[in-house]
Amino acid sequence: MKENFKKYFVELIGAFFLMFTVASAVSLAGEGVIPAISIGFVLMVLVYAGGHVSGGHYNPAVSLAAAIRGALEWKQLVPYWVAQCLGGSAAAYLALQFAKVPDTACAGCSCPFALPQLVTGEFLFTFLLCWVVLHVATSKGTEGNSFYGLAIGSVVTVGAFAVGGILCFGAFNPAVALGLGVLCHAGWCCVGATVVVNLLAAVAAGLVYKMTEIEG
Amino acid sequence: MKENFKKYFVELIGAFFLMFTVASAVSLAGEGVIPAISIGFVLMVLVYAGGHVSGGHYNPAVSLAAAIRGALEWKQLVPYWVAQCLGGSAAAYLALQFAKVPDTACAGCSCPFALPQLVTGEFLFTFLLCWVVLHVATSKGTEGNSFYGLAIGSVVTVGAFAVGGILCFGAFNPAVALGLGVLCHAGWCCVGATVVVNLLAAVAAGLVYKMTEIEG
Amino acid sequence: MKENFKKYFVELIGAFFLMFTVASAVSLAGEGVIPAISIGFVLMVLVYAGGHVSGGHYNPAVSLAAAIRGALEWKQLVPYWVAQCLGGSAAAYLALQFAKVPDTACAGCSCPFALPQLVTGEFLFTFLLCWVVLHVATSKGTEGNSFYGLAIGSVVTVGAFAVGGILCFGAFNPAVALGLGVLCHAGWCCVGATVVVNLLAAVAAGLVYKMTEIEG
Amino acid sequence: MKENFKKYFVELIGAFFLMFTVASAVSLAGEGVIPAISIGFVLMVLVYAGGHVSGGHYNPAVSLAAAIRGALEWKQLVPYWVAQCLGGSAAAYLALQFAKVPDTACAGCSCPFALPQLVTGEFLFTFLLCWVVLHVATSKGTEGNSFYGLAIGSVVTVGAFAVGGILCFGAFNPAVALGLGVLCHAGWCCVGATVVVNLLAAVAAGLVYKMTEIEG
Repeated sequence: MKENFKKYFVELIGAFFLMFTVASAVSLAGEGVIPAISIGFVLMVLVYAGGHVSGGHYNPAVSLAAAIRGALEWKQLVPYWVAQCLGGSAAAYLALQFAKVPDTACAGCSCPFALPQLVTGEFLFTFLLCWVVLHVATSKGTEGNSFYGLAIGSVVTVGAFAVGGILCFGAFNPAVALGLGVLCHAGWCCVGATVVVNLLAAVAAGLVYKMTEIEG
Repeated sequence: MKENFKKYFVELIGAFFLMFTVASAVSLAGEGVIPAISIGFVLMVLVYAGGHVSGGHYNPAVSLAAAIRGALEWKQLVPYWVAQCLGGSAAAYLALQFAKVPDTACAGCSCPFALPQLVTGEFLFTFLLCWVVLHVATSKGTEGNSFYGLAIGSVVTVGAFAVGGILCFGAFNPAVALGLGVLCHAGWCCVGATVVVNLLAAVAAGLVYKMTEIEG
Repeated sequence: MKENFKKYFVELIGAFFLMFTVASAVSLAGEGVIPAISIGFVLMVLVYAGGHVSGGHYNPAVSLAAAIRGALEWKQLVPYWVAQCLGGSAAAYLALQFAKVPDTACAGCSCPFALPQLVTGEFLFTFLLCWVVLHVATSKGTEGNSFYGLAIGSVVTVGAFAVGGILCFGAFNPAVALGLGVLCHAGWCCVGATVVVNLLAAVAAGLVYKMTEIEG
Repeated sequence: MKENFKKYFVELIGAFFLMFTVASAVSLAGEGVIPAISIGFVLMVLVYAGGHVSGGHYNPAVSLAAAIRGALEWKQLVPYWVAQCLGGSAAAYLALQFAKVPDTACAGCSCPFALPQLVTGEFLFTFLLCWVVLHVATSKGTEGNSFYGLAIGSVVTVGAFAVGGILCFGAFNPAVALGLGVLCHAGWCCVGATVVVNLLAAVAAGLVYKMTEIEG
């Protein structure tokens, strides 16, 4: 129990700093490479710091993929999700006190992205994120490596560059999508679609992992 | 056989995400450092995720160099090439649905690059890419390292900065060259020259590897 | 004693190069991503080079957190602080000879940042820096890893992007705060507040570390 | 003898690609972060690929520091220097065929930098480069690590940002300084001063290494 609490606490701390960095990046939107680099780097840092305690998910989709793969007990899934969403929401509320959020990106229920684009962008890179996590952090074939955080954080940087703000929000993470909802006071249809696509991509990644892993 | 299928599947997935990122970068061309960083990072990620299954080539030139060096069975070369080209083409077709491709870069058979420049640029950095892969991912002297993906991805970033769009496309990869052909509806003479130079550079790298490797 | 001298010397060299890079970045302020990348990279390099000798702190707040966690003897704390502040001040004085310091950022005692913002920004990322150092460089669960320098340096890059120059100086380091005081001839109230917040965040990180570490 | 030839060949290949990238970066001078990132990344890649064969110096100053520290036989120093200078010059001559070199940076013997600035900039970061190489690539305390290339390449990136083009050329490498001489048709006084300062910094780094290394 006490050990479980430590895991939840690490997930909460990680989701907090991830979302705070996202919120700061959103308020700096348009300034070139900074958002994508910041968000990828902070995820890398948090995975390296907390991975040996909780697995370093900070992302309900990653936790779901880990449960499907057998790297997280199913009964841990809900507490992980709660910790991640609490941490992300807290960071969004704190950032709201300081950050100037651009109005254009977040008005009412009107989503700034068309649904096919949103589904494609969020699905592809959430799938890649979860598939990479399973291969670099839960596979025997890569055991003991020192690159898992770099690989995981970099997926988010690449996704943010390739589709973020172009086809979709580029959340790749339901807790971040919720945080963006808090931060923007609205956009809840868009947020909901993002959350659903993220979780479906996690299921796909868990299944494809089993088709692409040799050493179990 | 089943294990071989897993390898081909990983090569297909990797070539898909590599080419999708390239396509997105092409449609964002001119926006400073984003294309070179995105493409290098996604290659790094894919090498770290799939390297322990298939070797993580995602590149027919790298597979050829690996076969010359004895790190890939010759009979695997054609299936690897097929998987890589299928993945790359699929990504190019998907990206075509969303990305705005700049017309100027891809008109008819007229190549935007002079042949000596194209040959120099593609040869130098495809050679470096293959030579680096053999030294960091197949050599006893670097066995067990955690840096192979970082080194391999970074060659492509550096090549994209140093010669990509200046002397040549900066593909350094026949599957990416084909994908660029799909994406641009044309430029096939240019694509063909790139593919030939990429494969010649791979042969050179395989031979030079043997002249520069101490521990076999 | 002689071994201790080596440790102090490494801390002095590291704080010198860290502060010299900060000073150069300040004199280039406004040029996009260069300051944040430079400062994070140089910290990474110095941690990798000197970490096996002195722990690679170069930061009185990190040394304090390490002492609380039991990774640094308490009697070493003052000599470490002296070496760090000497190195940082020397670099600031040297940089003053060459760098053009923007006047606007550093005028009199008037702080360019409001106190709640300054406290929030410096606290959050100094806390994260110290918490990450303890988890990646002093924990059994991550022993023998090759990523500690990358993780530690990247916290500072992310912090500089997320809050540096927006909510606060983005020092996350009392020795750097002092160096900024030297470099700017003034701003001492601001510097003093930064130093106090940095040290409080280190105490918090030391305590939270014990609540989030499983393997002791 | 045959093994020695392999080492010289690796040093030649590495110095060639390092200088070719520098030359390309010079011809792109002014385009923000690209030169510093390219040069640091390519050095990282080359160190990871060739380090296990030749030590991965590609830099006469680093070879001198390694000889002082006992990590390179003294009788190897001249052949290493010859290979490095040959590789660097060849790359500069090749780049001359393609790259547009900015006239302003390289006119006659008039050096674009004042001597005290040039000495300070080249000394500080060549010292740091050599000191870092000795600590991360020749020390027992960091044996078996996977970060040496990242640390070594990043010193050059940071130096290029912090002083390159501001206080000095930012060569930190006599072979690169010579290549810049070839590339610019002139500037030989400036090149000569750079070479001398680079070698003096290497001597200082070799001596200071012995004062900062615990495990010998």
